[in-house]
Amino acid sequence: MNIESVNNQKVKDYTKLNQKKYRDESNLFIVEGLNLINEAYKNGYLKTLLIEKGKVLPLDVETYYVTKDILKKITTLDNPPTMIGICEKLKEKELGDKILVLDEIQDPGNLGTIIRSACAFNIDTIILSEDSADLYNPKVVRATQGMLFNVNIIVKDLSTFIPLLKMDGYKIYGTAVDGGVNVKNLECYSKYCIIMGNEGNGISDNIKKLCDKLIYISMNEKCESLNVGVATSIILYELNN
Amino acid sequence: MNIESVNNQKVKDYTKLNQKKYRDESNLFIVEGLNLINEAYKNGYLKTLLIEKGKVLPLDVETYYVTKDILKKITTLDNPPTMIGICEKLKEKELGDKILVLDEIQDPGNLGTIIRSACAFNIDTIILSEDSADLYNPKVVRATQGMLFNVNIIVKDLSTFIPLLKMDGYKIYGTAVDGGVNVKNLECYSKYCIIMGNEGNGISDNIKKLCDKLIYISMNEKCESLNVGVATSIILYELNN
Repeated sequence: MNIESVNNQKVKDYTKLNQKKYRDESNLFIVEGLNLINEAYKNGYLKTLLIEKGKVLPLDVETYYVTKDILKKITTLDNPPTMIGICEKLKEKELGDKILVLDEIQDPGNLGTIIRSACAFNIDTIILSEDSADLYNPKVVRATQGMLFNVNIIVKDLSTFIPLLKMDGYKIYGTAVDGGVNVKNLECYSKYCIIMGNEGNGISDNIKKLCDKLIYISMNEKCESLNVGVATSIILYELNN
Repeated sequence: MNIESVNNQKVKDYTKLNQKKYRDESNLFIVEGLNLINEAYKNGYLKTLLIEKGKVLPLDVETYYVTKDILKKITTLDNPPTMIGICEKLKEKELGDKILVLDEIQDPGNLGTIIRSACAFNIDTIILSEDSADLYNPKVVRATQGMLFNVNIIVKDLSTFIPLLKMDGYKIYGTAVDGGVNVKNLECYSKYCIIMGNEGNGISDNIKKLCDKLIYISMNEKCESLNVGVATSIILYELNN
């Protein structure tokens, strides 16, 4: 089917998916470009494909052939992609044994990068605090490189959920700039939960209290801290080995 | 001394430092906020301080008390800082034994994050290829968190400079998505040079040919690659241990 006009109602509706409010109302979000569309499709989340007229991508989903102007209207990228996918939001899966908790990560690029690394280093579930950046923000989705479809990602109130994990036998690891155990020397339990804090302030005090152990990454004393995406990735890398 | 008007010639000149052309002409660049200004000052690079009238920062440099509108005009941040520093560009220092080469890193956030990690993990010199993002771009400077002042950073033509390093006894390590040696098992030489490639394409072919060894980070097969800032940081972390 073709859509020719940028004023088409569907185009208007899809464009609104750049706003969290409309993503929440519709339970849908946008992915841009072939790589992300393929990941969405493989994992059963792709609902609709919008593709530039003249291009071909033979997937078994509802497909609209659209103009460049329509793709330009929907995307937030400066260089519009030749295809955009409309996806259903992720379904909740089982928690698994390896959990990463993100306490108020604000930067969409950092959040996306962390999701990508979590998939690389075999995390089963990522738990986002309620005040984190929105998982379905187009910048987050892009930075995941499609890996959001390969990890279970849920949003929870941490102050009530982490005690439940503790009761369920998960070892709770927090991170600290100073003090604690060097992540190199950490003896790792089979069921664990790593908590990473906000870019500026680290883990909230009420969450820190719930930790069984604090861990740190050894570094040159001139450098106070690492980017949170980097710090999280190094910790997950160590624990995966 | 006070500056009141956004049309003051100094204010106009400082604002131009957001463009590479003017940074290159003047050999100056901008840092924003207390943390970066302190790092610049400690390392002898701060030349001029612009501070909001009513605020105090007693540093032994030329200081102008300015209006909020002036700070807003100069900064590229949505929330203007209360102080901005004008710095001289970095002076070239000795190479040292541990070198990181960045072949065409494009994203300013990635470049800044890598510089921060390089300082954390004791790299002596970072060599940027000529087509990398500009080191003095305000986004790069911010993402370094001031760590650019603690590492020697130079720009070189890689195809002529890497052979010189090789002749000088540096072991040259490249990175590959598949093949090569797991970075966990790398026997590390005292003088080495790690080459990291561009976000999309990795290391250029002509540079890859110069490598003594290719290394990779082991990860889940669902994940094709890591963010380049993360991959670089993990490799530097491993080699630092």
